Amino acid sequence: MDTGLRIRDFVAAIGSLPAGPRNSIADVAGVAVGQRSLVEGAIRTGVTVLLPHCDNLYRQKVVAASCVLNGFGKSVGLIQIDELGTIETPIAFTNTFGVGTCANALIRHAVAGNPDIGRTTATVNPVVLECNDGYLNDIQAMALREADVAEAIAAAGPELEQGAVGAGTGMSAFGLKGGMGSASRRLTLDGRPHVLGALVQANFGRRDDLRIDGRAIATAGGPDQRDAGSICIALATDIPLDSRQLRRVARRAVVGLARVGSFLGHGSGDIVVAFTTANRLHHDERRDLVPLTVLNESRIDPLFRAAAEAVEEAILNAMVAAPAMDGRAGRRQSLADLLRQMGYPARG
Amino acid sequence: MDTGLRIRDFVAAIGSLPAGPRNSIADVAGVAVGQRSLVEGAIRTGVTVLLPHCDNLYRQKVVAASCVLNGFGKSVGLIQIDELGTIETPIAFTNTFGVGTCANALIRHAVAGNPDIGRTTATVNPVVLECNDGYLNDIQAMALREADVAEAIAAAGPELEQGAVGAGTGMSAFGLKGGMGSASRRLTLDGRPHVLGALVQANFGRRDDLRIDGRAIATAGGPDQRDAGSICIALATDIPLDSRQLRRVARRAVVGLARVGSFLGHGSGDIVVAFTTANRLHHDERRDLVPLTVLNESRIDPLFRAAAEAVEEAILNAMVAAPAMDGRAGRRQSLADLLRQMGYPARG
Amino acid sequence: MDTGLRIRDFVAAIGSLPAGPRNSIADVAGVAVGQRSLVEGAIRTGVTVLLPHCDNLYRQKVVAASCVLNGFGKSVGLIQIDELGTIETPIAFTNTFGVGTCANALIRHAVAGNPDIGRTTATVNPVVLECNDGYLNDIQAMALREADVAEAIAAAGPELEQGAVGAGTGMSAFGLKGGMGSASRRLTLDGRPHVLGALVQANFGRRDDLRIDGRAIATAGGPDQRDAGSICIALATDIPLDSRQLRRVARRAVVGLARVGSFLGHGSGDIVVAFTTANRLHHDERRDLVPLTVLNESRIDPLFRAAAEAVEEAILNAMVAAPAMDGRAGRRQSLADLLRQMGYPARG
Amino acid sequence: MDTGLRIRDFVAAIGSLPAGPRNSIADVAGVAVGQRSLVEGAIRTGVTVLLPHCDNLYRQKVVAASCVLNGFGKSVGLIQIDELGTIETPIAFTNTFGVGTCANALIRHAVAGNPDIGRTTATVNPVVLECNDGYLNDIQAMALREADVAEAIAAAGPELEQGAVGAGTGMSAFGLKGGMGSASRRLTLDGRPHVLGALVQANFGRRDDLRIDGRAIATAGGPDQRDAGSICIALATDIPLDSRQLRRVARRAVVGLARVGSFLGHGSGDIVVAFTTANRLHHDERRDLVPLTVLNESRIDPLFRAAAEAVEEAILNAMVAAPAMDGRAGRRQSLADLLRQMGYPARG
Repeated sequence: MDTGLRIRDFVAAIGSLPAGPRNSIADVAGVAVGQRSLVEGAIRTGVTVLLPHCDNLYRQKVVAASCVLNGFGKSVGLIQIDELGTIETPIAFTNTFGVGTCANALIRHAVAGNPDIGRTTATVNPVVLECNDGYLNDIQAMALREADVAEAIAAAGPELEQGAVGAGTGMSAFGLKGGMGSASRRLTLDGRPHVLGALVQANFGRRDDLRIDGRAIATAGGPDQRDAGSICIALATDIPLDSRQLRRVARRAVVGLARVGSFLGHGSGDIVVAFTTANRLHHDERRDLVPLTVLNESRIDPLFRAAAEAVEEAILNAMVAAPAMDGRAGRRQSLADLLRQMGYPARG
Repeated sequence: MDTGLRIRDFVAAIGSLPAGPRNSIADVAGVAVGQRSLVEGAIRTGVTVLLPHCDNLYRQKVVAASCVLNGFGKSVGLIQIDELGTIETPIAFTNTFGVGTCANALIRHAVAGNPDIGRTTATVNPVVLECNDGYLNDIQAMALREADVAEAIAAAGPELEQGAVGAGTGMSAFGLKGGMGSASRRLTLDGRPHVLGALVQANFGRRDDLRIDGRAIATAGGPDQRDAGSICIALATDIPLDSRQLRRVARRAVVGLARVGSFLGHGSGDIVVAFTTANRLHHDERRDLVPLTVLNESRIDPLFRAAAEAVEEAILNAMVAAPAMDGRAGRRQSLADLLRQMGYPARG
Repeated sequence: MDTGLRIRDFVAAIGSLPAGPRNSIADVAGVAVGQRSLVEGAIRTGVTVLLPHCDNLYRQKVVAASCVLNGFGKSVGLIQIDELGTIETPIAFTNTFGVGTCANALIRHAVAGNPDIGRTTATVNPVVLECNDGYLNDIQAMALREADVAEAIAAAGPELEQGAVGAGTGMSAFGLKGGMGSASRRLTLDGRPHVLGALVQANFGRRDDLRIDGRAIATAGGPDQRDAGSICIALATDIPLDSRQLRRVARRAVVGLARVGSFLGHGSGDIVVAFTTANRLHHDERRDLVPLTVLNESRIDPLFRAAAEAVEEAILNAMVAAPAMDGRAGRRQSLADLLRQMGYPARG
Repeated sequence: MDTGLRIRDFVAAIGSLPAGPRNSIADVAGVAVGQRSLVEGAIRTGVTVLLPHCDNLYRQKVVAASCVLNGFGKSVGLIQIDELGTIETPIAFTNTFGVGTCANALIRHAVAGNPDIGRTTATVNPVVLECNDGYLNDIQAMALREADVAEAIAAAGPELEQGAVGAGTGMSAFGLKGGMGSASRRLTLDGRPHVLGALVQANFGRRDDLRIDGRAIATAGGPDQRDAGSICIALATDIPLDSRQLRRVARRAVVGLARVGSFLGHGSGDIVVAFTTANRLHHDERRDLVPLTVLNESRIDPLFRAAAEAVEEAILNAMVAAPAMDGRAGRRQSLADLLRQMGYPARG
């Protein structure tokens, strides 16, 4: 469920850089997102898959990096991203106990498209990010099935619902309803337009700490005052970078988190994955030496700013896009409702 | 299958420190190992679980650390070990495509023993290590079931078969048959006896590179000359250490690898996990401040040496304990047979 | 030069936790700070030394950790802090080209107090943090002398001037005058009072980006719009922690940076060092095993919040405490003057 | 002092890859080495500088990486290498207490060639590696002067004395005389010849542990049985790599260390720096995007093997090239003498 609202329906803008046309990660050409939501009985969960491109990812890996802001989390695949600087499967977001199932589904998807995997070539490194949706969802039910992941991959495209959808279905943030959110920023390099987008699974933060564009949203007395959640973040760009540069960009996601009020709580597994669509490495490369294009490092500040702003806005989008929800342990209010009560204007 | 042979049946000793009574990781009091082997049709795989102790691991976490020697691997759980310095589930070893299934099984096992997980307390961090057994095993079949993992946990005890058993069933090493192997070293601290043990899943190395106690085992012309495997290593000790110290010990495992002939090949995911049974941290701890015992850092050299020697010997044990095996892509000879052909003495 | 002003002269408070009695790092019992400022001709630089305690630091090392937020910096000593988890000299702050001289001076100071260093015992690891004060200071002159460092150490005590003093003399921040700043937060553990303090060398940030308690300080058109500076941060506490826990606390300093408007600019070497006075490790320890007290990890959130808030306030203190200064390349206005022009109240 | 002997005067070869024409780091075209030895009274120390190329290094930075195998060391400059992936000064090797002086000298050298440093452009990141030569040298004297470093830089060229020279003057290894040593390996990529070279400052190891090509050199009863030394290693290559790839190569240096008998002793600061001469990044680059050539990652194994072998041989060269020496605390025998006594053949 997506209220259709975005934070720009309530405040003028987040940060100073211009947003892309969709103001979402899908502004990066070729990137596709697919989602599957599971809502029945005590189940409030799902899966969101992010495809760096729609060709054979295993054959044409994208240059990538990861960054662990706080390692109280169960994401898989990061070690190999760090070592080899590539991603070779879709990136799946899900709940903490859906990680194994997503990993299995991503393996089967890769093998289906590449029957030599594990036989005459190497194996494959599934990438799965997760947050704990146990407040609204019966996480012990381990409801996600491999077929759900396959459906999400099959449905992937450039349109992107936000809020309580896919892996965001059961998420909570700042004691309110969380979810999936996205935003993007435009940049110009060597006279040509580029874009950097963020996709976040927002499930973190204490009610008292929420800030929108620096202003505290006074909501004392809300439930669930421990920051026991997490946030997983994917950054995508069409700017050519190497893995080290992508890791530097990924590390700036923390600025967006801090701006909305996080202090990287103990229980919050805060993880970032970043990739560029501009540098593909071919699994079957025959040359010993291959050309790559990278960024002049002294021009990287706008990317850092873009990452900080896109993450900040994506988190707020995740929240205002999510309607209130009742679940296993109680109810999560919607930030959009709260803002309206506080007198913020909105189209909706 | 365990030939019953150990490397000390062929050479006097590995290194200079004395071995424990079992010369295995089970010399660390309380540690238990359970295994389940799957051999039928084209399947040659399995699972090995290592329990740091046999009480409720989630309630009484052990202080731990990890070390990534080469990150071309798909192990799960390491990020949280690094952040929090604890392990709270059994450590499962399996094949690369069994990781998701093991993670699911470890979650279910933890939830069964701790029904508050994901409801009124945090979730749980399963730890799974893996190597690619695709040469002998049809890894695409994804044959491992959650029930196999549960059976291995249920069967865990201080006795430990080595060689082609459990997660070692389908492993290859140095172009020969690999497997699970173990060894230990005794140490004295403040006048009291202690022990450090290693358990390895040996699946790495090029045929030409194998060395036993420094001597090259001349086997030129063997098959599969690429080092496309991996090694996963667990170190256990009853010496009180903190997580930082355990990480330092874990990093010395590389010395054992280098001594048998590895150069940390590109395709080899070389991962170490280490824990101490002497420092338990209680999930339900009520005090704000808790006492811990640690090692006087200036006395750590014997532990480093012990880790290096135990890993070196555990690798060689894994190999001589494994009989020859036919599998999906061909046959793996036994190191024990090869050594006998070369004139090494052995009881067997 | 210290205006005597602090940010609380302009705004009610930063964050929600109570400050210590001095609201400075000197609230941590035993911690001492000494400074030496060099202002003549084109020279605007100096040194600030932070002593974790006033006993023999080499003999009684403090448990410590470091964190590199952005590694475009020249600090020394961090590698050994990370490996061994201890600090054994005063921590010196200076300009980028004063690092070698500070390192030499710290070595001589350690040798003077411990004549066995480098003869019958190990060497010593000097810790030096630095920022580039080249805008106001003629950094090429390399004006700092070893005697300056020795004088700063000799003068160290619990009183702490802030602003344009010591290593803060020539610093710039957000296009305004920067400097040394400090703040602290009080915490209660097991019913007993504790404190965490921050000392910062603030030399970073773009003029347009400055925020005070979330509010943008509109100063468009200021000079020097690149974030070419740095910030070095020391955190001290009397809470017993191990090195891993201190590293987690140190990583939260980034939250304070982001809150005042940093996005961790490319050119900004952002470095954190943290130590506890509650766990001393004795160089001449004779026992193999030693007791340590650590924090129940599930109680660490208040420390994270304290670190974030203390760093945020220390940065703002550094700025309002610093009067305007003319230097090599131009003039840096004082934030205090700017705030008064904007109508903020202040005693001063 | 260089005996003129190399390990190949005693054994056939180390490893399996062919050595370069000089079998030294100077086989990498453009690399130059300069040394200055200080031997008088109780002084046995010096400095060795390694120039990645002889053009303006600050203007034309080389792509680089570092790796800390054991962080009990005081090297400077590594943090920025890791962040930016470049080296912009000569790499200086010296004794532990000469680090500050080398850093100062490298700064002055960079400023002399680039008067805009610290004024209209950024500062500069000196890279200094160090080992403790306190057994033979009166390290407390801090005898090295900035002029010594300048002289070493001025004298740099492709010829390279090994053994007890430059930074190797006072070094000890395995209870014997250590020093500076070098070796190289040839590789072919896309049909063209390439080379990888190692330069080591060998000052580590326990007498009983030394192994040459796997064979123990039985020398029980030697003095100084603690591994209290260190080893610093530079790797150079003309193969185009990015920083992440160079870090992977650097991490394989540990294999060479383990092969000669190190277990990465607690007190040994084991540090590796690696660079390629094939990718220069221009300080004054005007384009936003720049082309780079990198290695097809699946072809990296020969580089790993080359790094392991070159380091192993360089260590042994350092030792056999060093004649016996008397110093502050006693005498260090020469490995060459010892090998001759053991019946090894040698030209010398």
